Amino acid sequence: MNDFSTDVLEESRPGEVGIVAYSDFHSSEPLDFALGGRLESFDIRYETYGRLNADASNAILVCHALTGDHHCAGVYSINDRKEGWWNNIIGPNKPLDTNKYFIVCSNCIGGCMGSTGPSSLNPATGRPYNLSFPALTVKDMVAAQARLLDHLGIKTLALAIGGSMGGMQVLQWAVDYPERVRKAIALATTSRENAQSIAFNCVGRTSIMRDPLWNNGNYSADTPPRFGLGIARMMAHITYLSEKGMEEKFGRQLRQGSDSKFAFDSGFEVENYLRYQGSSFVNRFDANSYLYITRALDLYDLRAPDGTLETSLKKVKARVMAVGFTSDWLYPPEQNLEIVQALLRCGKDATYAEIESDLGHDSFLIESPKLYELIEYFLEA
Amino acid sequence: MNDFSTDVLEESRPGEVGIVAYSDFHSSEPLDFALGGRLESFDIRYETYGRLNADASNAILVCHALTGDHHCAGVYSINDRKEGWWNNIIGPNKPLDTNKYFIVCSNCIGGCMGSTGPSSLNPATGRPYNLSFPALTVKDMVAAQARLLDHLGIKTLALAIGGSMGGMQVLQWAVDYPERVRKAIALATTSRENAQSIAFNCVGRTSIMRDPLWNNGNYSADTPPRFGLGIARMMAHITYLSEKGMEEKFGRQLRQGSDSKFAFDSGFEVENYLRYQGSSFVNRFDANSYLYITRALDLYDLRAPDGTLETSLKKVKARVMAVGFTSDWLYPPEQNLEIVQALLRCGKDATYAEIESDLGHDSFLIESPKLYELIEYFLEA
Repeated sequence: MNDFSTDVLEESRPGEVGIVAYSDFHSSEPLDFALGGRLESFDIRYETYGRLNADASNAILVCHALTGDHHCAGVYSINDRKEGWWNNIIGPNKPLDTNKYFIVCSNCIGGCMGSTGPSSLNPATGRPYNLSFPALTVKDMVAAQARLLDHLGIKTLALAIGGSMGGMQVLQWAVDYPERVRKAIALATTSRENAQSIAFNCVGRTSIMRDPLWNNGNYSADTPPRFGLGIARMMAHITYLSEKGMEEKFGRQLRQGSDSKFAFDSGFEVENYLRYQGSSFVNRFDANSYLYITRALDLYDLRAPDGTLETSLKKVKARVMAVGFTSDWLYPPEQNLEIVQALLRCGKDATYAEIESDLGHDSFLIESPKLYELIEYFLEA
Repeated sequence: MNDFSTDVLEESRPGEVGIVAYSDFHSSEPLDFALGGRLESFDIRYETYGRLNADASNAILVCHALTGDHHCAGVYSINDRKEGWWNNIIGPNKPLDTNKYFIVCSNCIGGCMGSTGPSSLNPATGRPYNLSFPALTVKDMVAAQARLLDHLGIKTLALAIGGSMGGMQVLQWAVDYPERVRKAIALATTSRENAQSIAFNCVGRTSIMRDPLWNNGNYSADTPPRFGLGIARMMAHITYLSEKGMEEKFGRQLRQGSDSKFAFDSGFEVENYLRYQGSSFVNRFDANSYLYITRALDLYDLRAPDGTLETSLKKVKARVMAVGFTSDWLYPPEQNLEIVQALLRCGKDATYAEIESDLGHDSFLIESPKLYELIEYFLEA
């Protein structure tokens, strides 16, 4: 029932992962969700790069952010210029070195890039789950990944790594499967979503749900609530950048060819950029997945019922590094530092690093020799 | 043609402005707009508090922010609990002391609270201007106010004061009418809208314009684009607060009576609050005015064509104070400081003050003994 194909078809470019393909893991065993609800069966789409060694001790799990996916390195064809989202960090002799490590990245459960999510067909009805998809948490994303690792024969991870929502998954891994994670790197993340972030997510969701085409989640694939989802993305995109970064990149520059700077829908270059971000996003992302995943972010809170992080984190066995980026105002440095401080209070092996950057929350995705050095050092130490 | 009625009907409550009424100034002289376009006639709704002295030397102009209006002090009836938006600062023996000063506040041109704006009837057609309203700038708002002051017999202002967009108007006053402004206080403002603020305004406008009910600006008064305007307001409201302030006020508190924290449209208290802000706003504000006024904000840039602030500010004769609030991330302290630095480089009399506050951009609206003291000191010095 479970397919397992090799993914790296060719490594034609020296120093690059090269051409890759995704695989689908189908589980016919059910998945029970943390808040109740269950999928009787599910699929996880994933990619792997490098070779798993004989004792399966060289596996690295890469966890993606809200709108990311399993395609984090390489390209799908020789003519495909769109590299995986973390291609700068994954490859031969790169910080996540495919000569040494077997790297796995999967689309999260609840997503829309091949893993089972709201837009997937419910085998019991032959129709999309839509809002009948179970309530989703980061804990469920991690539980589904654990099933994939079982399937791949990986008992323990040399490293779990990810930024933003990926960092939340990394921490959840360290808490829920302490025996399976030897090292963990959480970037630009938090131990719990704060009121401001919940507020931004709420505006995005409200925008989708007020789009008449949303139709209580029962839209057809060819008439999705594009406007609502586009607005949500435009707004969220601002939170991924920084004031300084936007000022340097766009400032008050007028759009080329703009005939009137008073037109409400064009004029400044930054508007053009945001509108492009919104419209390209709706072509690749499902609105119901956006609702489910942002809600999973809101619900993320590693604190134990007693209100402390320590009670949760005392289970952790991994060596943990958290990295904050100075201009990240979505999950600011302090929120990353706080994780390490709590781990240290529990007597855990934990390190905090802060990287100076003007690129805001998205800094973790962008070329950064300092970040590369930190990852290499932490991985080899 | 020009009406001029007295506004303060009663000052029944000691220490308070008491019951007030608004007046309408009708100008049958045209108003030419800075970017072209003209209104053949226009109305300005305004309120005044206190008495203009014999030589008309005690007038203070209060300028409102994006969604504010002319009603900044007192109440409209004995049973009306809704005080003007700056009632804490305006009144007998308050920082803007109605025992000493004659205070004027008008709804900006382009607005929707009684002054001529896109929703007003165009006398030439008998139908609302909608998008045929002239392109709007802060310069036009100030020009219309100047006409009101002419009508009221006020040649010079003892003080022009305002926060946010009100602060922009104050600076524009000092630049465009240097002989008419003796002192100016600009709070929580900027000398030019930056890329991030333009970006947020762009998302709000896009949300309105993609609401099918917007209908290219030609909606009817009873079916406005409520959803789009509500989303715009919800998002903008986040930018008026601060991360810390939201965390202290709401944190991750669940909504009382919320049956499921996974529901997409309720759950956390902060969501409930934002949704309330959005829905109450659409009952009082016109969507086209929101488009025009946010675009006026985007276009605000006091720099001269040579790229410097100094070339514009060298005309200023007023003594200027700019005040930044530490947690304001919409118009952060640096942007307020920058105004004063440029004035000082021109040899002007200018002071910068910074107030510690966790309440974000809205700090200037909220009770603050420190701010009161600064205003009193600056006004009397």
